[in-house]
Amino acid sequence: MEEVSLGVVFLSEVVGSAMLLLLGGGVVANAILAKTKGLGGGWLLINFGWGLAVFAGVLVSYKSGGHINPAVTFGILASGADSYAAGVAITAASTVVYVVAQLLGAMIGALLTWVAYKQHFDAEPDPGKKLGVFSTGAEIRNPMWNVITEIIGTFVLVFVVLAAGNWGDADTATPAGLGWLGALGVALLVVGIGASLGGPTGYAINPTRDLGPRIMHAILPIKGKGSSDWGYSWIPIVGPLIGGVLAGLLSGALLPA
Amino acid sequence: MEEVSLGVVFLSEVVGSAMLLLLGGGVVANAILAKTKGLGGGWLLINFGWGLAVFAGVLVSYKSGGHINPAVTFGILASGADSYAAGVAITAASTVVYVVAQLLGAMIGALLTWVAYKQHFDAEPDPGKKLGVFSTGAEIRNPMWNVITEIIGTFVLVFVVLAAGNWGDADTATPAGLGWLGALGVALLVVGIGASLGGPTGYAINPTRDLGPRIMHAILPIKGKGSSDWGYSWIPIVGPLIGGVLAGLLSGALLPA
Amino acid sequence: MEEVSLGVVFLSEVVGSAMLLLLGGGVVANAILAKTKGLGGGWLLINFGWGLAVFAGVLVSYKSGGHINPAVTFGILASGADSYAAGVAITAASTVVYVVAQLLGAMIGALLTWVAYKQHFDAEPDPGKKLGVFSTGAEIRNPMWNVITEIIGTFVLVFVVLAAGNWGDADTATPAGLGWLGALGVALLVVGIGASLGGPTGYAINPTRDLGPRIMHAILPIKGKGSSDWGYSWIPIVGPLIGGVLAGLLSGALLPA
Amino acid sequence: MEEVSLGVVFLSEVVGSAMLLLLGGGVVANAILAKTKGLGGGWLLINFGWGLAVFAGVLVSYKSGGHINPAVTFGILASGADSYAAGVAITAASTVVYVVAQLLGAMIGALLTWVAYKQHFDAEPDPGKKLGVFSTGAEIRNPMWNVITEIIGTFVLVFVVLAAGNWGDADTATPAGLGWLGALGVALLVVGIGASLGGPTGYAINPTRDLGPRIMHAILPIKGKGSSDWGYSWIPIVGPLIGGVLAGLLSGALLPA
Repeated sequence: MEEVSLGVVFLSEVVGSAMLLLLGGGVVANAILAKTKGLGGGWLLINFGWGLAVFAGVLVSYKSGGHINPAVTFGILASGADSYAAGVAITAASTVVYVVAQLLGAMIGALLTWVAYKQHFDAEPDPGKKLGVFSTGAEIRNPMWNVITEIIGTFVLVFVVLAAGNWGDADTATPAGLGWLGALGVALLVVGIGASLGGPTGYAINPTRDLGPRIMHAILPIKGKGSSDWGYSWIPIVGPLIGGVLAGLLSGALLPA
Repeated sequence: MEEVSLGVVFLSEVVGSAMLLLLGGGVVANAILAKTKGLGGGWLLINFGWGLAVFAGVLVSYKSGGHINPAVTFGILASGADSYAAGVAITAASTVVYVVAQLLGAMIGALLTWVAYKQHFDAEPDPGKKLGVFSTGAEIRNPMWNVITEIIGTFVLVFVVLAAGNWGDADTATPAGLGWLGALGVALLVVGIGASLGGPTGYAINPTRDLGPRIMHAILPIKGKGSSDWGYSWIPIVGPLIGGVLAGLLSGALLPA
Repeated sequence: MEEVSLGVVFLSEVVGSAMLLLLGGGVVANAILAKTKGLGGGWLLINFGWGLAVFAGVLVSYKSGGHINPAVTFGILASGADSYAAGVAITAASTVVYVVAQLLGAMIGALLTWVAYKQHFDAEPDPGKKLGVFSTGAEIRNPMWNVITEIIGTFVLVFVVLAAGNWGDADTATPAGLGWLGALGVALLVVGIGASLGGPTGYAINPTRDLGPRIMHAILPIKGKGSSDWGYSWIPIVGPLIGGVLAGLLSGALLPA
Repeated sequence: MEEVSLGVVFLSEVVGSAMLLLLGGGVVANAILAKTKGLGGGWLLINFGWGLAVFAGVLVSYKSGGHINPAVTFGILASGADSYAAGVAITAASTVVYVVAQLLGAMIGALLTWVAYKQHFDAEPDPGKKLGVFSTGAEIRNPMWNVITEIIGTFVLVFVVLAAGNWGDADTATPAGLGWLGALGVALLVVGIGASLGGPTGYAINPTRDLGPRIMHAILPIKGKGSSDWGYSWIPIVGPLIGGVLAGLLSGALLPA
């Protein structure tokens, strides 16, 4: 197996995470910001939008196994796997590269969403909706229960990914043949998690998916923006990390080889 | 073919059934409980949620062939097949293991749904909706017609599964290659059955999918819960069992090899 | 290649067509009849329901190539193909067997839809909705334009099926491996035709899909039923036949080998 | 590899583009014109309709690689690929053949949409909706921001297509086996782009998809039609061309081989 350099891993995860957040943020913008064509499109529209954002994101980051989510990276680590992707060894350095790239990519993707929907951000009067395009929030805020919901949702994501195998494997998710179908499997799983477990907290199920855009919300000169709600920000980081690691730890016991 | 121990079968069906009910109960919670993000999301949302719950459930129970439904288990038995899954012989013991695991898994999944949506159960005033997250009920109650509708829906499920072959086969539904696609086939079938035949009774089409959560509804300290409606509980057991066995018996005659 | 007897072809097309109409009629019943869980579910629900009805119908009729539609049968005939399916020669006798089986199967499927939704037919006051579960009708009635719309929709179905190859081929759509994916391709195509071309006439795109249920509507003792609207009945027969044959005739010229 | 003649490329792209616009225009007609069955079907219906229009269009144009979009053609050109499809060399002549065929096909498809929905065009009082079936328009008109949104959407389309490989390759997207799945991948990507990035401008992401139908809107004797809005027409040409070329140019740098 050919080794993939950490530079390639970095680039791959940046590009994939940017794609994830551009399309993921985009569908929320389309569904809730003023004067869009998709306004009021509903929860299933948002679920398909995020699922297909994962589809596109995994496809363009196949060289690094298409993690685009630290919960996946740490879940693989906790599972005792011997590599993060074909040709990518699990080391402290590679772990850092994954997470930093995921955060940076998420920030870039959020920026692009804002650019694509610039006029609709300007036209939207409600600052809560503007933040909602960037980051998640709970319908009924309660740290303990919100964290638990995020743990459960992320556990499902990482556990099923580990059960079904290396869907984003660089050997199969490439131009040759039908390898792109692996990305479809993860995409459908995310549609399902959103439909079923997204109701209370908006299914961050990915720390950088929430933190990266929240940083951009704070930085960008968004017209009429309100608080970036940093008080909530630790929940979609801590919950997904616990859920992902838990899935990795339990995968061996609950999924006999 | 390597033999799969009954312990592995048990664990596999528990995990798969828990996944099924967590995501299946979850999408109903999201669509009907107070203050969720998916509130009012509609029937198609529920259909995709349950279909993808089957997708995830089958994926994580591939070692046992991904039955996660006694109607499937008894349908395979009635069809005269020579095994429940690759490496799992059909015996009285294995049959009991499947069904007990399916019931236990369904109970665990219902518990997790309640945990994930705890605050929304608390906020929801209607006890009927709370029960609706756990178990099915008829829109127009009538034992005979309700049973018939469940027979027809389950017949379609098991008959098409038998026609299309061993979608959850342990040899193909594993990490290697595209085997996860078999789970997708069953998932889409369940989306279709829900869309087309779920209107009168909510398509239990699985005895433990209804009974397990109903037991949990009775046991759990759900705030403001009402009756667990045991008077209806036999219908989603009897109908699916008849439908599954009928599909198994007729599969040989109606699906010439 | 093993020959498939006409008896098997007959049984296969009866079973497939019954499955098609049971699920296809079912989704309309669910979306429009009184007191169903899917009431008001919308056009996309109906499109997915019919698409997945095709999915299930093709899967259970793989021995005969999964036509379940005379427009497909006559389209293949007109295309100059050398067989209707693997092992099924094109003869006057086999053609008759296909069409008679498709009609009979459609009648059985419509009967089963009525049984599954019996109480909702009884509860529904509008006779037009009852007929709508069985057969199609135009939103703006005009024989010429309605026929043209049906020609175009059926042309798309048969032309794309011929372009993409023998999706329902008995050699691939069988228990082994991933052959069921062919049925998925046709199913998605039907979702698309419904979404895009179903608006004016409800996309019969299949003569027996409309005629069989219409006969059943006339025969069955449906409470409070109205006219079976025989004046419209020729349109969803003539339009689809023209469209299918046209697709067959033009496939050679427009799809160079 | 067998060479594909430019005549075949021409025919293939005409047929594929006509299919794309027939189904793509059709779903908009169904969702917005008076008295259709899909009226008010919503954004997700439109997204699936366009996605499956791409599915059908790519399937019937497999001989030319299923571009059916000059942004794809120029994106492949800019990427430095050595052929447009299996057996089709990149030359000035072949480039012209692709684009002319795409424009002509789009015009034919728009004509067929009008024919299929003729009575609904006649019944619809709003000229803006009539134009909306043919061509795109911005919800908040602003040349710079509208162009940027189209650049971003088209970049995603072409970049992911290049990342995932030759989905429409004539060697795989043919009758044999599972080749049609490549078309499904592109279709799902287009569903996602529509859901996520279609909100501001209606995701032309294809110059001829907009220009061809706009020409037909100007030419056809559509009852009660209004302006063809030529002032906007350059935006869905320029934006997609920039986005496609940019994706081609950056694909090498951002998608290490």
